Amino acid sequence: MSTASFRALHDRLRRQVPWGTGDRRGALNHISPERLAAAAGEARLGRSFTLAAPLASSAPDNPEPGMRHMKRLPGEPPDVPGVSFAADQLVMNVHGDVDSHIDALCHVSYDGTLYNGVRPGAVTSQGASELSIEDVRNGIVGRGVLLDIPRLRGIRWLEPGECVSAAELAAAEAAQQVQVGPGDVLFVRVGHRRRRDELGPWDVAQSRAGLHPDAMAYLAERQIAALGSDSNSDTAPSVVEGVAFPVHVLAIQAMGVHLLDYLQFEDLLPACEAAGRWTFLCVVAPLRLRGGTGSPVNPIAIL
Amino acid sequence: MSTASFRALHDRLRRQVPWGTGDRRGALNHISPERLAAAAGEARLGRSFTLAAPLASSAPDNPEPGMRHMKRLPGEPPDVPGVSFAADQLVMNVHGDVDSHIDALCHVSYDGTLYNGVRPGAVTSQGASELSIEDVRNGIVGRGVLLDIPRLRGIRWLEPGECVSAAELAAAEAAQQVQVGPGDVLFVRVGHRRRRDELGPWDVAQSRAGLHPDAMAYLAERQIAALGSDSNSDTAPSVVEGVAFPVHVLAIQAMGVHLLDYLQFEDLLPACEAAGRWTFLCVVAPLRLRGGTGSPVNPIAIL
Amino acid sequence: MSTASFRALHDRLRRQVPWGTGDRRGALNHISPERLAAAAGEARLGRSFTLAAPLASSAPDNPEPGMRHMKRLPGEPPDVPGVSFAADQLVMNVHGDVDSHIDALCHVSYDGTLYNGVRPGAVTSQGASELSIEDVRNGIVGRGVLLDIPRLRGIRWLEPGECVSAAELAAAEAAQQVQVGPGDVLFVRVGHRRRRDELGPWDVAQSRAGLHPDAMAYLAERQIAALGSDSNSDTAPSVVEGVAFPVHVLAIQAMGVHLLDYLQFEDLLPACEAAGRWTFLCVVAPLRLRGGTGSPVNPIAIL
Amino acid sequence: MSTASFRALHDRLRRQVPWGTGDRRGALNHISPERLAAAAGEARLGRSFTLAAPLASSAPDNPEPGMRHMKRLPGEPPDVPGVSFAADQLVMNVHGDVDSHIDALCHVSYDGTLYNGVRPGAVTSQGASELSIEDVRNGIVGRGVLLDIPRLRGIRWLEPGECVSAAELAAAEAAQQVQVGPGDVLFVRVGHRRRRDELGPWDVAQSRAGLHPDAMAYLAERQIAALGSDSNSDTAPSVVEGVAFPVHVLAIQAMGVHLLDYLQFEDLLPACEAAGRWTFLCVVAPLRLRGGTGSPVNPIAIL
Repeated sequence: MSTASFRALHDRLRRQVPWGTGDRRGALNHISPERLAAAAGEARLGRSFTLAAPLASSAPDNPEPGMRHMKRLPGEPPDVPGVSFAADQLVMNVHGDVDSHIDALCHVSYDGTLYNGVRPGAVTSQGASELSIEDVRNGIVGRGVLLDIPRLRGIRWLEPGECVSAAELAAAEAAQQVQVGPGDVLFVRVGHRRRRDELGPWDVAQSRAGLHPDAMAYLAERQIAALGSDSNSDTAPSVVEGVAFPVHVLAIQAMGVHLLDYLQFEDLLPACEAAGRWTFLCVVAPLRLRGGTGSPVNPIAIL
Repeated sequence: MSTASFRALHDRLRRQVPWGTGDRRGALNHISPERLAAAAGEARLGRSFTLAAPLASSAPDNPEPGMRHMKRLPGEPPDVPGVSFAADQLVMNVHGDVDSHIDALCHVSYDGTLYNGVRPGAVTSQGASELSIEDVRNGIVGRGVLLDIPRLRGIRWLEPGECVSAAELAAAEAAQQVQVGPGDVLFVRVGHRRRRDELGPWDVAQSRAGLHPDAMAYLAERQIAALGSDSNSDTAPSVVEGVAFPVHVLAIQAMGVHLLDYLQFEDLLPACEAAGRWTFLCVVAPLRLRGGTGSPVNPIAIL
Repeated sequence: MSTASFRALHDRLRRQVPWGTGDRRGALNHISPERLAAAAGEARLGRSFTLAAPLASSAPDNPEPGMRHMKRLPGEPPDVPGVSFAADQLVMNVHGDVDSHIDALCHVSYDGTLYNGVRPGAVTSQGASELSIEDVRNGIVGRGVLLDIPRLRGIRWLEPGECVSAAELAAAEAAQQVQVGPGDVLFVRVGHRRRRDELGPWDVAQSRAGLHPDAMAYLAERQIAALGSDSNSDTAPSVVEGVAFPVHVLAIQAMGVHLLDYLQFEDLLPACEAAGRWTFLCVVAPLRLRGGTGSPVNPIAIL
Repeated sequence: MSTASFRALHDRLRRQVPWGTGDRRGALNHISPERLAAAAGEARLGRSFTLAAPLASSAPDNPEPGMRHMKRLPGEPPDVPGVSFAADQLVMNVHGDVDSHIDALCHVSYDGTLYNGVRPGAVTSQGASELSIEDVRNGIVGRGVLLDIPRLRGIRWLEPGECVSAAELAAAEAAQQVQVGPGDVLFVRVGHRRRRDELGPWDVAQSRAGLHPDAMAYLAERQIAALGSDSNSDTAPSVVEGVAFPVHVLAIQAMGVHLLDYLQFEDLLPACEAAGRWTFLCVVAPLRLRGGTGSPVNPIAIL
């Protein structure tokens, strides 16, 4: 896709945002109380599933791994009477290419602005004064829909570099007998987590399956509330000349759609298949990191 | 309470655990699929509320504050074409006396063992090989119940050092017309978060309201699945001779009840009052920290 | 001192810098090879002393304490044959009000520039592309001189808020029979480390002894190479209207004098007194932190 | 070398330690005040050189890279009047396979003890109560000697896996006309830093040049005070059956010799060659990390 075509697509999607100049929640506005309450009705089997992967160690896709160190061990002499504790400390980057996380709307700057015209200067060394992850403090609670592209194609996973088109999303809907609609939290599975588990990690920053930018126009029509993947939704290399992460730009900066990156669906998948159902109650609960550009998350799917 | 009485109470509660020696999930077993599905029915208004407080900065109750530092600013020249990013890094202790978190069952050692007889040596400098927070990877999803003790007493908050007895929990149930039952995620509000907001932080490690150890016998009978508070559920100073955190010992080590510490209920409270209802769907989603002793969390209450 | 007087002093000191517009080492240029070799002649007793304090824990002057956590314990089963290791991890702020550190020349911006007209934009979220601590990678090696102000005054320490004037520096030189000269690394003791040891920590950010700005003109004439203190050389509150850290501005930004903050002289002091000598070989070895604004250090004094 | 031969060598070297059971400084005792003062006489040219490499980023030899993040930028609005600051934060492992550091004597446990019979339990999750790096708080100041093995062999660097024998150390002394003696801080260059600079990083944990264990007997006779290298002094794979780091065991645990790992000599080397001299004043200044197993360092060589 040429730079000019991308810009035209971007500008069109941006103009369609109906929330007004003061909005800071973007597509989460699509989740009305009615839709949220209806989504709760998906939790009929009473079973919950993690959509996150465990904190990863050093690997080709994880050059700055998060670390969890012990501060105190229960086998050692206690420092208070009668009881001893185990405690630890956490050091981790919020983004990156392997740990499951959510991007705040301040994460992406394009054409000199963040989402909804907010100036990049709203993010300083002290954090984001606007569009931070704190704006999602009440969580994302809505109907989750999982579209399984490898299932549609009859393969185990998409190869790095491959693209999912709007047409393919529509085909997956048809095959799975599900319709993506307003306020849905859409998950598009490309099978990268399974590929990583079976073949080992690779440098996903250089080579990664994701959505074609055109698919974002389709999803804008469907009025999704948020978008997640077991990749980061963007292919690598980019299919757009001169724009490295076109889906990030369209989703976060133009449409105000929060992205959920590097999730895993391998636990949920067999349950969906057994139930013959690809919708569920979904709850995403970012940490309350004031000024934060995102958060590590463990999205929960409830069937 | 004497050391001997405490030990007797401990041993009795520990003997009552029905899950067998191999169990690692403790009271979460009380949440059956049926109870989970029923809990989803609480989400009728379609509104969600955070039960976490924002990451706190340095204060008398926060001697080792978590830090969130910027790694990249969107106003700076991008390192990839056409788009620039804001990104940050997180350093934080998992426990402590102010940030909202969940304690894993490996967190407490008493009388030479962790929960269910697991030896403390299962926790090394490399983390917990048993009873880590990874055992809660699918989240805690169930009916949440909020008992508001300051409301019962007609005050704004309990003063540090005060105790909530079993009788008072029963009185709160009666006053709020709610019955705590099997599989519930119980939240006991002592008002400490409000006190902190209004009077400023104090050294809560030295002086804190919480539950009386006797209340744990009451909650064991009720078969709660997990217990949270806007304190850490334990009073300071301890009311038990020679045991610093008796409620931690009883809940985590004897009963296998995960504790949720230093939550905030100030957002949820007005909604409960307006709805005249103190039950809700509750989702707690710990990060997947392999070997971890707990996790920062943002529990979500859905009315 | 009025803002205008300060500005005049600043501009005069800045104009006196003789090193040319491309210089990035500032007053360290005063240490010629001859002076360095001569300084080595101070090491006659063959005894070395630390001028750093141990990494501090949380205290009123240390709201974000550095942390050192164990990664591996020698008593645990080894992960390689025949040997086991102890290892740890370090998390610490480079500056702050208690841990001994050196300020790089990029640390201070005044009047829209860093030292020698370098624009503040040279420091981004990726670090300092100019004037970073890497410019001191070969260490500061020269003659150290300790001026002991409490000794001059016959007291144990200066009280927080007190000022050391140029005249008092001259009086200390006379009393100690030492002459501060070109290329010296000057240490001015105000006794704050002793006060902290004996009375306990206080909020030194609010109340601190240091040099009067006029003293910097005196030290510019003497052509010192670097300046250290057991405070941070600046008084609090500031004696200059509208400028919070006037000595930092004059030393680092105008004169290119690296500052060494929050050192301790209590180990060195008795040795100097016993030797009747206040000069020594001094070696400061900052870590090689590319782009860094400073470094934790342990300056060594060799008598 | 067989496990039994190694054990015999170990036991012999350990028995030779003359400092008594209470000693915690090991071979640093060889640096008498006279030797230190004499070493200062090496600083005749008045030039200093770093022996450290810059903090490394992620690479095959650096799976958990240290990070330096900005906390404050000078181009942003100041939070105090009239001046703005650049500040940063440091997160780094103390050991590892690329960043220059010193190992404390608590770092190595062999045969159930640390150096001089100290039990491994002296190191807990709270740090080392004995043999920590704080014991080196006054720095290591002595005569440095650089033996350049690639120079002796007429090559650019030793290949990973190669060994330096006692005979080769003696040959290097002869070729460089220098005699290693009591109290010297010995640096053995294998050229790995140059190899890394020119060929790029490799997985040095698997493949690394170092000393043969026999060389340690030679160095014990010479009574060196400390030992450094641009490797970590141990070959990989190990030449001893069943013992992964034999030189670490002999140096640190048996002889009480502090090791300086992953230094760089590329700056010093041309100056030594030009001066025709391989001795210098050496100053190593570890950070004061209470309980620490070592410290990042920037050793300074002064010619």
